Amino acid sequence: MATHLQSFSTLKGTYIPTTFPIASAEEVEQTVQAAADASIPFSKKTFIERAAFLEAIAEEIMELGDVLLATTHEETALPIARLTGERGRTCTQLKLYANLLRNGSWCDAVIDTAMPNRQPLPRADLRRMLQPIGPVLVFGASNFPYAYSTAGGDTASALAAGCPVIVKAHESHLGTSELVAKAVLRAAEKTGMPNGVFASLVGTGVVLGQQLAADERMQAIGFTGSYKAGMALYSTATQKRKTPIPVYAEMSSINPVILLPEVMAQSAAAIATALAGSISLGVGQFCTSPGLLFALNDQATQSFATELATALANVSPATMLNPQICNTYYADKKALAHTNNVKIILEGSDLSELFQATPALMQTTAVHFMANPSLQKEIFGPCSLLVVCKNLDELKAAISTMEGQLTGSVFGTTEELIAYQYLIDGLQQKVGRLIFNNVPTGVEVCNAIVHGGPFPATTDARTTSVGPEAIRRFARPVCYQDCPQALLPLYLRNHNEAGIVRLVNGIQTMDDVE
Amino acid sequence: MATHLQSFSTLKGTYIPTTFPIASAEEVEQTVQAAADASIPFSKKTFIERAAFLEAIAEEIMELGDVLLATTHEETALPIARLTGERGRTCTQLKLYANLLRNGSWCDAVIDTAMPNRQPLPRADLRRMLQPIGPVLVFGASNFPYAYSTAGGDTASALAAGCPVIVKAHESHLGTSELVAKAVLRAAEKTGMPNGVFASLVGTGVVLGQQLAADERMQAIGFTGSYKAGMALYSTATQKRKTPIPVYAEMSSINPVILLPEVMAQSAAAIATALAGSISLGVGQFCTSPGLLFALNDQATQSFATELATALANVSPATMLNPQICNTYYADKKALAHTNNVKIILEGSDLSELFQATPALMQTTAVHFMANPSLQKEIFGPCSLLVVCKNLDELKAAISTMEGQLTGSVFGTTEELIAYQYLIDGLQQKVGRLIFNNVPTGVEVCNAIVHGGPFPATTDARTTSVGPEAIRRFARPVCYQDCPQALLPLYLRNHNEAGIVRLVNGIQTMDDVE
Repeated sequence: MATHLQSFSTLKGTYIPTTFPIASAEEVEQTVQAAADASIPFSKKTFIERAAFLEAIAEEIMELGDVLLATTHEETALPIARLTGERGRTCTQLKLYANLLRNGSWCDAVIDTAMPNRQPLPRADLRRMLQPIGPVLVFGASNFPYAYSTAGGDTASALAAGCPVIVKAHESHLGTSELVAKAVLRAAEKTGMPNGVFASLVGTGVVLGQQLAADERMQAIGFTGSYKAGMALYSTATQKRKTPIPVYAEMSSINPVILLPEVMAQSAAAIATALAGSISLGVGQFCTSPGLLFALNDQATQSFATELATALANVSPATMLNPQICNTYYADKKALAHTNNVKIILEGSDLSELFQATPALMQTTAVHFMANPSLQKEIFGPCSLLVVCKNLDELKAAISTMEGQLTGSVFGTTEELIAYQYLIDGLQQKVGRLIFNNVPTGVEVCNAIVHGGPFPATTDARTTSVGPEAIRRFARPVCYQDCPQALLPLYLRNHNEAGIVRLVNGIQTMDDVE
Repeated sequence: MATHLQSFSTLKGTYIPTTFPIASAEEVEQTVQAAADASIPFSKKTFIERAAFLEAIAEEIMELGDVLLATTHEETALPIARLTGERGRTCTQLKLYANLLRNGSWCDAVIDTAMPNRQPLPRADLRRMLQPIGPVLVFGASNFPYAYSTAGGDTASALAAGCPVIVKAHESHLGTSELVAKAVLRAAEKTGMPNGVFASLVGTGVVLGQQLAADERMQAIGFTGSYKAGMALYSTATQKRKTPIPVYAEMSSINPVILLPEVMAQSAAAIATALAGSISLGVGQFCTSPGLLFALNDQATQSFATELATALANVSPATMLNPQICNTYYADKKALAHTNNVKIILEGSDLSELFQATPALMQTTAVHFMANPSLQKEIFGPCSLLVVCKNLDELKAAISTMEGQLTGSVFGTTEELIAYQYLIDGLQQKVGRLIFNNVPTGVEVCNAIVHGGPFPATTDARTTSVGPEAIRRFARPVCYQDCPQALLPLYLRNHNEAGIVRLVNGIQTMDDVE
C-alpha cells in the first residue's frame, strides 16, 4: 500500500521527485469533522464577508507568481501561455462569484407578509431564501489544473454559496494543488473564515475519493473527469449512503457538429480549417472538443474530409496531460479504427512513447453509427468521427439516437437553418448549449453560459458548472414562518440593510418591508 | 393476474363496484410514445398558450361539479367540506402557474450580446433560458386526491414548464382520477394542445409504476407517498436506467416541534390545544403532521402531556383513507407502544374494523430517542411521540441525530428564541420550513413557501413541490450561441414581444435588445 503519491511529468518522461503523503485515516476524519463543524459558522458569514474571502483567494493565487506556472507546466505539459490565461480565468471566476455575493440578489429572497385578517384563514408571514447545503466534496479535472481544480469553478461556487469545501487533490498535479490549497487557506485566515472552511486531501480516487463520497457529513459532490470515475461517485452518492446527495459530475461529451449541405457547398474549406483548430486545440483535451461530425454524402463533404484531414495532419504533435490519458487516447483511437465499417481518413503516427498525440480522423455512415453505440464513446484527444448521412432524414434519425452532450453545433446558411429547424429542435433535446456556425471549444464565463447538459455529459442537466447559476447547485431554499426579526437572516429582515432585490408580496423591490 | 382495479370505500367497508381496466402493454407503449412525440410541439407552445391550457383545466374541474366531490368522498372518506376546499386549492395552483406563465419571467431569460471587438478574443452572442426536460411521470398521493394527484401540483408545474405528463392513477381513488383526467384531456383539446400532452394510466405501482419509471423516454418523476414506494422509484430512476433522471419524491416527515421551557411555563395548555388540533387534523394524514415533540423534563411538560392527552382523547374517531393506511397506522402505533422505554400516555381504542383512527400519544427520553433510530419512523395517522430531555444540550444533541424533515417548529418566548438560537440553527439544517410559535400543518400556496426538505423528507432538498419554484424541477437551462433571431425562442429574441423581465448584459430590463 503506497504511503505517498507523485505526479508524472509527460514533458520529462519521469516522475517528479516531490512526494505527497497520502492523508491518514485520522487526518481524513479530522478534516471532514472540521468541515461539518464549519457549516453553521460559515453559513452565517455575510455575503460581503464571503466575497472578500473569494477575492482574497484570487489575490493569493496571483501572489504565487511564476512558481505556480512553472510547477503546473511541469506537471501537466500545458504551455505557460495557456496556463497564464487559465490562471486569469480562474481569478475571473472567483471574482464573478464575489460580485454575485456583493450584489446579493442571487439568494432568491422572497417575502410574503402576514395577512392576519384574511378569510377564511389568516396568512402567516412567510419568507424564503437559498441557504448552503453543507460540506461539498470537489474533484478537480486534469485538463484544467486551475479553472476546474483546487480553487476552480466548483470550489468557488460552493464557497460562494456558503458551503465548506474539501478538495481531493488531483493526482496529476499534486504540486499545483498544494500551492493553490495553501493560497486558499491563507485567504481564509486573512479574511477570518472559520477553521475547516477549506481543505485539500491527498489520496487516490478509488480509496480516498470513495471514502469521502460515502461520508454522511458530505452534502454534495462536484466532479469533472471520466465517465467511469464520475459514475462510481454517482453510484456511491445515490445508493451507498444512508442519505443520497446531489452529484454534479461532468463526464463525457463528443460535441456533435451538424454540417448542412448549402453552407458546405459554399464554405467547406473554411469550416474544415475551423474544425481542425477546434479538434486539435489543447491536444484535444477539452470537454467541448468536437468528436462527431454529421454531413451529407455529397461532393462538398468529400472535399471537406480531405481538407480537414490535411489540416489535422499539419498540426504539430503535442504532449498530453498524463500517461494514462495518452495511453487511453491511442487505445481508443485504435479501437475506433478497427471497428467494422469505420474508414480511416487520417490515422496519425504513434508517438505514445513521447506521450504526444497526433490528430486523427475517421469516417462511418449514419446507418453504422446508429447500429453501433460504441461509436458514441468519447475519445479524449484530437480525434473526430465523420458520420456521412444519405439525407437529412437519416441525419435526424442519427441525432435522435445520440446520448446527451454539453454542446451541439450547426453550420448552415440562415435559409437552411430555418428550413431544417426540425434538425435543430432534435439536437436541442440532447445538449446544454447550441452553437450556430462556430466550433464548440471556448466556454465563455458570462451570465448566459450553460456548461452542462443531459446525461452522460453530466449527471444533472438542470445545472451549469460555469457562470453565476453554478452557485445554485450548492444551495437549497429554506422558508421561515412567523420568524422574529432578530432571528431572521439579514437578507430577509424588514430593513433591507444589504440592499438586495427581493420579491415582496409579488413585487420585485429593494425597499424595506413596512 | 388481475385485469381490473377497484377502489375500496372505507366509509362503506366495501369495494366500490366500478372497475377500471389495467392498461395493456400496447396502451402503455402508445401512451409513452405519444408523450415523447408531444415533447417538442408542446415545448413550442407559447407561455400564454400553456397558461390558457392550465386555466381550462381548472374550469373543467369545476365543471365536474358535485359528481366529483361525491366520487372522491366515497373513495377517500374525506369530508365534502374538506374536498371542496382542496378542489379550490387545486384550481388556485393551476392558476398560480398560469399567472407565472403569463408573467413569463420564470424562464430566467439571460442575454449577453456579442462583443466582436473584445481583446484578446471576441465574445459570441449568448442567450439562455429554461426549457422543458421532457415527459414527466406523476404519482398522486392518497391524502390529497385533488391537490397532489391527477391535476395536482406536480402535474400543474410540469405542464407549466412545457413537459407532457403521464399520471399513474392512484389505486385509492380511481374514479376521481378518471374524472379529473378526462377534464384535463378536454382542456387540452379545447386549447389546442398536442396529442399526448397528458394521459392517465391505470395499474399497480409495483408493475406499471416501475415500468414507466424505467422507460428511457420518461425524463423526470414526481411522487408523493410512502418511503418504501418513493425509494423504489428513486432506485429505478438512478440505477436501473441507462440514463438516470431526477426524482422528486416527497416521502416521510415527522415534523419535530421544539417546546422551550419559558413559553411552556406560560402557555402549556394553549400549546397542547393547538398541537392536539394539528396532530388530529385530517385524521393525522398530513405530510406535515407533528409526530415528534421535544420538551424539557419539568413540571410544565408534565402538565402539557396531560392536557395534550386529554385533548386528543376528546377527538372523535374518524375514517382513514384506505384499509392499508389504517392497518399500517395501528401496526406502527402498536410497535411504538411496545418499544422499550416508550411510555404510553394515550393509546386510543382499536377501531380498525371500522377503518377509523383514534389519536395516540407516547413518551420517551432523549437518551432513548438518540439510541433507537426506529423511534424516527413516520407513523401516518394521529399519533405523536413526546421526547423528554434532561436539558437543552441534550435537546440539541437529539435534534442533531434527526433525519431530514419537511418542517421544524419552535415554540418559545422571543427572549428564549434569541437566547437559544443555536437550537434553531441546528434545526434549520434538517428542515425545509422553520415555523415559530405555530403548528406545522397548513401549507400556504404562495411565493415564499417551501414544501420540501432534506432526505428522507424528499429525495431532492433543492426544490419545493408547492409554490412557483416547483416549476423549475421540470426545466433545464439551454444556451443559444450566435443563434439567428428567427430561430431563437420568442423569449430570447431582441424584440421582447412577450414583455418579460430579462437580464441583458447584466442589467434586469424589459427593454428590447438593440
